[in-house]
Amino acid sequence: MAYERIKLESLKNRVMSAEDAVRFFEHDMVVGASGFTKAGDSKEVLEALARRAKSEGIKITLMTGASLGHDTDGKLAEAGALKKRMPFQVDRILRNKINSGEVLFIDQHLSESAELLHNKNLPPVDIAVIEAAYIDRDGSLVPTTSVGNSATFAELAEKVIIEINTAIPMDIYGIHDIYKAENYPHRNVIPIVAPWNKIGRKTIPINPDKIVGIVFTNKKDSPADIAEPDEKTTAIARHILEFFESEVQLGHLSDRLLPLQAGIGKVANAVLTGFKHSNFYDLTMFSEVLQDSTFDLIDSGKLSFASASSITVSAACYERVFGNLQRYRDKIVLRPQNISNTPGLIRRLGVIAINTAIEFDIYGNVNSTHIGGSKIMNGIGGSGDFARNAYLSIFVTQAASKNDTISHVLPMVSHVDHTEHDVDILVTDIGLADLRGLAPRERAQKIIDHCVHPEFRQELQSYFDRACQRGGHTPHLLEEAFSWHLRLTEKGSMKK
Amino acid sequence: MAYERIKLESLKNRVMSAEDAVRFFEHDMVVGASGFTKAGDSKEVLEALARRAKSEGIKITLMTGASLGHDTDGKLAEAGALKKRMPFQVDRILRNKINSGEVLFIDQHLSESAELLHNKNLPPVDIAVIEAAYIDRDGSLVPTTSVGNSATFAELAEKVIIEINTAIPMDIYGIHDIYKAENYPHRNVIPIVAPWNKIGRKTIPINPDKIVGIVFTNKKDSPADIAEPDEKTTAIARHILEFFESEVQLGHLSDRLLPLQAGIGKVANAVLTGFKHSNFYDLTMFSEVLQDSTFDLIDSGKLSFASASSITVSAACYERVFGNLQRYRDKIVLRPQNISNTPGLIRRLGVIAINTAIEFDIYGNVNSTHIGGSKIMNGIGGSGDFARNAYLSIFVTQAASKNDTISHVLPMVSHVDHTEHDVDILVTDIGLADLRGLAPRERAQKIIDHCVHPEFRQELQSYFDRACQRGGHTPHLLEEAFSWHLRLTEKGSMKK
Repeated sequence: MAYERIKLESLKNRVMSAEDAVRFFEHDMVVGASGFTKAGDSKEVLEALARRAKSEGIKITLMTGASLGHDTDGKLAEAGALKKRMPFQVDRILRNKINSGEVLFIDQHLSESAELLHNKNLPPVDIAVIEAAYIDRDGSLVPTTSVGNSATFAELAEKVIIEINTAIPMDIYGIHDIYKAENYPHRNVIPIVAPWNKIGRKTIPINPDKIVGIVFTNKKDSPADIAEPDEKTTAIARHILEFFESEVQLGHLSDRLLPLQAGIGKVANAVLTGFKHSNFYDLTMFSEVLQDSTFDLIDSGKLSFASASSITVSAACYERVFGNLQRYRDKIVLRPQNISNTPGLIRRLGVIAINTAIEFDIYGNVNSTHIGGSKIMNGIGGSGDFARNAYLSIFVTQAASKNDTISHVLPMVSHVDHTEHDVDILVTDIGLADLRGLAPRERAQKIIDHCVHPEFRQELQSYFDRACQRGGHTPHLLEEAFSWHLRLTEKGSMKK
Repeated sequence: MAYERIKLESLKNRVMSAEDAVRFFEHDMVVGASGFTKAGDSKEVLEALARRAKSEGIKITLMTGASLGHDTDGKLAEAGALKKRMPFQVDRILRNKINSGEVLFIDQHLSESAELLHNKNLPPVDIAVIEAAYIDRDGSLVPTTSVGNSATFAELAEKVIIEINTAIPMDIYGIHDIYKAENYPHRNVIPIVAPWNKIGRKTIPINPDKIVGIVFTNKKDSPADIAEPDEKTTAIARHILEFFESEVQLGHLSDRLLPLQAGIGKVANAVLTGFKHSNFYDLTMFSEVLQDSTFDLIDSGKLSFASASSITVSAACYERVFGNLQRYRDKIVLRPQNISNTPGLIRRLGVIAINTAIEFDIYGNVNSTHIGGSKIMNGIGGSGDFARNAYLSIFVTQAASKNDTISHVLPMVSHVDHTEHDVDILVTDIGLADLRGLAPRERAQKIIDHCVHPEFRQELQSYFDRACQRGGHTPHLLEEAFSWHLRLTEKGSMKK
């Protein structure tokens, strides 16, 4: 059965155990692995590598598409297998090792890793581990639930190990669109003008001679954690939908809107779910990840097409999608992340981008990645690719958390991922601030009036007023700018 | 003579004085004016507007391409004529009014103003003032030394006043390439794959019925201030050229390099001048502004083609260029700034971007705009458009200034315009830090080792070491992060 998934006869003798496959890894190697938002990652080889690293002290640089499932990042980190990691992660154990300085992490825009490799701005990939549904007759790979950076790794790595996942139905063939941009100085146009354009191949081309090992697995992707919308996320979603409705009323947008991008998480799911009962129709997505809400919207007839780099859904949704691929195959496409997240395409299509902030400040600068200025949570992911080039760039966060002892709207963010130039709309459960056409001092007043939790409003207003008295285009009191963060560290609360 | 420059007969009766033309302006109007880096700006009408505003108390919102010459921004600001100003300025008087809060300023990526207008994310333009070399038979406009946002203003403004500049030779016709991207959701590919591609019209289309006034001028553009390279700028240029040479040696780049972008100023001129005596050849530029050094490089046979949105040169270079346009016309093109600065084109062409920082920090975050976190200098200009999408993003600044009392390399920048994600190479007169492939802690050590002035190195190292002890992916001591800026304010020096 499993061997049927190797359609190129000459490769059948490369099947081996994960333990044998990891013998190809050497200390200090650069490893490229499939996997994007927990989808389509290596389930066997990287885990076997963690075991080997533990006993033999091997350390590697690991590049992926984005985050991995199955706690693989944690297992690798715990085994001391990671010297350097890029471009994204969401693992608790790995995060702690990064923050302690034990693992070096490069937090990259998800569109850029492939560019950096092709341009030789990063060291070359020694070995790649790529999950595939099957290997086609010409040796090319049919990807699974994500594309990520797999096409780049397959092209550039010296050696490649394929993990064939027999849990993935073979009729997944055809939902991927594999396109490679030319190398400089001869790069041409990427000919996508609508989310549904398919411009490439259905499989990932690879030189079969590079395939040194094939490992079978039947493990599914780790399911997405789906949290039911709560009061805050519902409020945020309502503000955004009301805003869209008012933009349609004003004639700025049609009731088809423009292609939507939504970051992972509760809020994005709540917003997308909100569309179900709205008057919008014929919606499209040009995003990084397809979540449960994407398929709900397709089923409800509201969403006509969704483009992304991965499918990351709950266990129930997984059954629905992969048990009924015929229902969805003409309505979705998975692309390499250097296509799904290309700045030029995001601007060309006029994407409406909705991403989550950890905190933002009175001028609209956004911190998506760091706690207290120093400690990273996950990474910037694709938020920068989208926010900077979007038709409308929307960031959301809760106004306050932990019994309202922490305000997520601050005098100054402790780390900047998105500058005020790239932030059009800020939303909290308290309200929405439309910052378009506003100068910094106007932005500040609007954010204070609409987004801050009432517990913190007076003090934020006081900071802004006193800063304005001292003057400036973007008035700040540098000696006080981080006082809220410092108070949190000292007293466990931002409250005075 | 002058009337020959109005080739559409029916417009000849719209000639009037600047004083008459400014009667079309009303309080609270949004005005769009030509002008980009002091080139192709209004010389008569905006100045007359300043006079009228002084006596009648009119206030307007002024959008331009970028900065204006002839102290026009200062005159308007002094007259109290400006309520709001965007997207860029370099005027001392206006800057002070912005920092005092008297004038509201929106600091915009130069590629975005036209987008924001077309997308109705900014209020509509009531009246435009556009400098032209002449009006063609169909009423369309032949621009002068810049294109900037003129094509957008001509299309969108309700009324248009043309300033015909008789100091510009009429054979400037043909050096412009006017292309308009489609409106959403039907935007297509912008078909530029090399700096020399011309894809549009030679003139700016306009509905002649909208032209309510034509004013003549014979004033030239304000000349660029050309400062001779000094020891520091020469050192910076040397570091950059050596870096390029080593990239060629490594096979990362060819000796044609890739299209160059250089911000305005001494360093850019020094780098470009350095190419004259190098082994590089067949160079190209895909930039915003053509400076003296551009034409020197063309004359020396090193530069084959240069694309930008304006020509801003010294008085001597101005005579050379406009007295010999035949020599240059096949080697240059001026484009609308939403084309010259388009993120997608910058990535497609693989531009090498060199921009100037006010300060940068140990992790490579760059401040291009603000002094002490609050006060703006000029604006972000096109630096963000280029840095974020460049093949290589290089930022330069002097290591220290004012008798080495101010360090331009700091624990934390007081304002972030470019995040560490978008900064590949940092250069000061001390040295060059190649940050590619480095995690934040590695970046910090490299910047401290290579870029900091020796006077400040030990203290910066101490900050970094103590921050690392506390931990984090990007270790900081928030209570101390701005201590260098605060010391400068208190004691006039950053030295301890």
